[in-house]
Amino acid sequence: MTDSDVKQALAIIKRGCDELIVEQELVEKLASGKSLRVKAGFDPTAPDLHLGHAVLLNKMRQLQDLGHHALFLIGDFTGMIGDPTGKNATRPPLTREQVVVNARSYTEQVFKILKPEQTEVVFNSSWMDELGAAGMVKLAASHTVARMLERDDFSRRYKNNQPIAIHEFIYPLVQGYDSVALRADLELGGTDQKFNLLMGRELQKQYGQAPQCILTMPLLEGLDGVNKMSKSLGNYIGITEAPADIFGKIMSVSDDLMWRYIELLSFAPLETILQWKAEVAAGCNPRDIKVRFAQEIVARFHDAAAAALALTDFESRFRQGGMPETMPEHTLSAGTAGLAIANILKQAGLTASTSEALRMIEQGGVKLDGEKITDKSLILNAGKQMVLQVGKRKFARVLLE
Amino acid sequence: MTDSDVKQALAIIKRGCDELIVEQELVEKLASGKSLRVKAGFDPTAPDLHLGHAVLLNKMRQLQDLGHHALFLIGDFTGMIGDPTGKNATRPPLTREQVVVNARSYTEQVFKILKPEQTEVVFNSSWMDELGAAGMVKLAASHTVARMLERDDFSRRYKNNQPIAIHEFIYPLVQGYDSVALRADLELGGTDQKFNLLMGRELQKQYGQAPQCILTMPLLEGLDGVNKMSKSLGNYIGITEAPADIFGKIMSVSDDLMWRYIELLSFAPLETILQWKAEVAAGCNPRDIKVRFAQEIVARFHDAAAAALALTDFESRFRQGGMPETMPEHTLSAGTAGLAIANILKQAGLTASTSEALRMIEQGGVKLDGEKITDKSLILNAGKQMVLQVGKRKFARVLLE
Repeated sequence: MTDSDVKQALAIIKRGCDELIVEQELVEKLASGKSLRVKAGFDPTAPDLHLGHAVLLNKMRQLQDLGHHALFLIGDFTGMIGDPTGKNATRPPLTREQVVVNARSYTEQVFKILKPEQTEVVFNSSWMDELGAAGMVKLAASHTVARMLERDDFSRRYKNNQPIAIHEFIYPLVQGYDSVALRADLELGGTDQKFNLLMGRELQKQYGQAPQCILTMPLLEGLDGVNKMSKSLGNYIGITEAPADIFGKIMSVSDDLMWRYIELLSFAPLETILQWKAEVAAGCNPRDIKVRFAQEIVARFHDAAAAALALTDFESRFRQGGMPETMPEHTLSAGTAGLAIANILKQAGLTASTSEALRMIEQGGVKLDGEKITDKSLILNAGKQMVLQVGKRKFARVLLE
Repeated sequence: MTDSDVKQALAIIKRGCDELIVEQELVEKLASGKSLRVKAGFDPTAPDLHLGHAVLLNKMRQLQDLGHHALFLIGDFTGMIGDPTGKNATRPPLTREQVVVNARSYTEQVFKILKPEQTEVVFNSSWMDELGAAGMVKLAASHTVARMLERDDFSRRYKNNQPIAIHEFIYPLVQGYDSVALRADLELGGTDQKFNLLMGRELQKQYGQAPQCILTMPLLEGLDGVNKMSKSLGNYIGITEAPADIFGKIMSVSDDLMWRYIELLSFAPLETILQWKAEVAAGCNPRDIKVRFAQEIVARFHDAAAAALALTDFESRFRQGGMPETMPEHTLSAGTAGLAIANILKQAGLTASTSEALRMIEQGGVKLDGEKITDKSLILNAGKQMVLQVGKRKFARVLLE
């Protein structure tokens, strides 16, 4: 590979990333012309992929386009253990059968982004089971307690006298050992994974391998613009959602957050994105840019026809329905129990009282994201962002925290 | 079992022990009349048993005499791992064949104390290998980092920024899990093992078993009267040593240390020992008591004839050779490199200079524990206690630290 090829590849790889460790090592690996083994690990418990996962998968796809080999690692070893303290009921141990089912669902979804012919789906139980209890002891011997307590969350919990179970020290080592077993050249992960990704580097050195490079990607904020996008917070856009839902959810994000999504998810060249920003600076409505981006995403996970239909549908519901260009915005606290729709309407100033709100719903005069509400007892939870409409003219954008 | 039987058994069990946890639980177990499963763990790397081990084994034998079942546990799981950090060259991983050979050597020795028909030799690899990597993770999840850092040596090392490898947190759990696998009712160990013995109690509770009682025995001081008796310090009396060596080494211990040895190793009834103390208080030479005790120990590990012969031999070398009843005592520092015999003779005041010392050795005028020294370059190490004689009349008892 020529220097200029390497430089070009490096620019593509680094786009949008948070950190690359160590750049010079990656330059050498790229210059060798070898197809690199690019690892990314996924939890086998939650096979509903969303745009948060897509940030990482897009990067992996870019690496595939550059000729590299994706190792899609399913962490079934820990998944089959579940929560070994038994305290977390939301993490029951998975059976091998469930892992297989989840893996199939995963691959169906990831191949909307990744190239199947350059992707290897691997399960860490296949080498961890073989490692045995003795191998686990040796693995544990590779690092010190003090080194492990350097990890931000461990150090904070230890200082605050919050319990850290000993197996929690072992999981980063398992993740690191996966890199050894896979002979990974590069590992991708979220910024919150940096410590664990570095474990892979250290263990590979101890096992006599060239250390993997690590590339951390920013964590995508959810629809609320505040928390990391996650299924449990309900602030996500799933990649298998219907075209109209993906389109509508993207249209609901704030103009600020829109640029963040575009930066991390659009495949448009950087020059194009700069051009869009210039257009907005020159007076173009940000919503027009949002429409272009929403169409790109729908087209990626469905197709161009679906994207066109979603736009028409959206316009008929909102623009032609008279949704104003600007509207009042309210941030309300939903607490842990959620907030009833009648309370939301009152607190957002759309009705004078909750009883008026209930009457308006009965009369069919309330819409949520363009859809008529019929359930008067509807409860909405934190993380939800929506456009509410009462009658023909009252609108508000509401974010529940 | 009647209350009075239980009381009597308890008195025998508690004799010489450091701590019994929990006495009331043991009383209940004894009262049930059931034959208890009594566990003690041994390291498979050092099959030369000495009187330090005998303290524990004697207690086990007493329990056998009370009708209980000894579980002689060989910790081969960790033995076959060796030092997983690779830093300690003195702990190479043992092969399964070496473990078997060492175990055979162990049993040959322990059956000088234990009753074979009430002893089960068990290897923890048999359940640890089966536990697997996943089982190890679950085991690690049973305790917190903070709980483990409560152990004295861990807490000290952590405070002093000395490294603690993570597998060191796992070893106490393995030892505890052994109690689960063995369904132990009682575990014996040295006072330095208390933390690990308590792990067994805790894990048994977590696994739904009645917790084992634990009985800690004091650590026997070596011949130097200072350090714990250990092979590596050279301050030990091996139970397979020749009768004359066992006899001579016991005769070389100080009069103070003699009582400690008698307390922990003699099977003489407590009343007899009190009687001996009274004799000494009344003017009897402590050496006469030491002779009785030395004969008991030689007879136990060899036989009565060997004990009688050892005494005759000892007397012909010392008493008949004119060894005085009392002699000067010196404690010298041997450092890590040891101390040359000529320096020892000079520092002990037996010769005026090292050159005189060398000359006396050349002339055959120096004896160490009654044996003529011929090697002028002899180096002696810390832990060694001896009687040195120069010419006919100069004697000194020397302890190297």
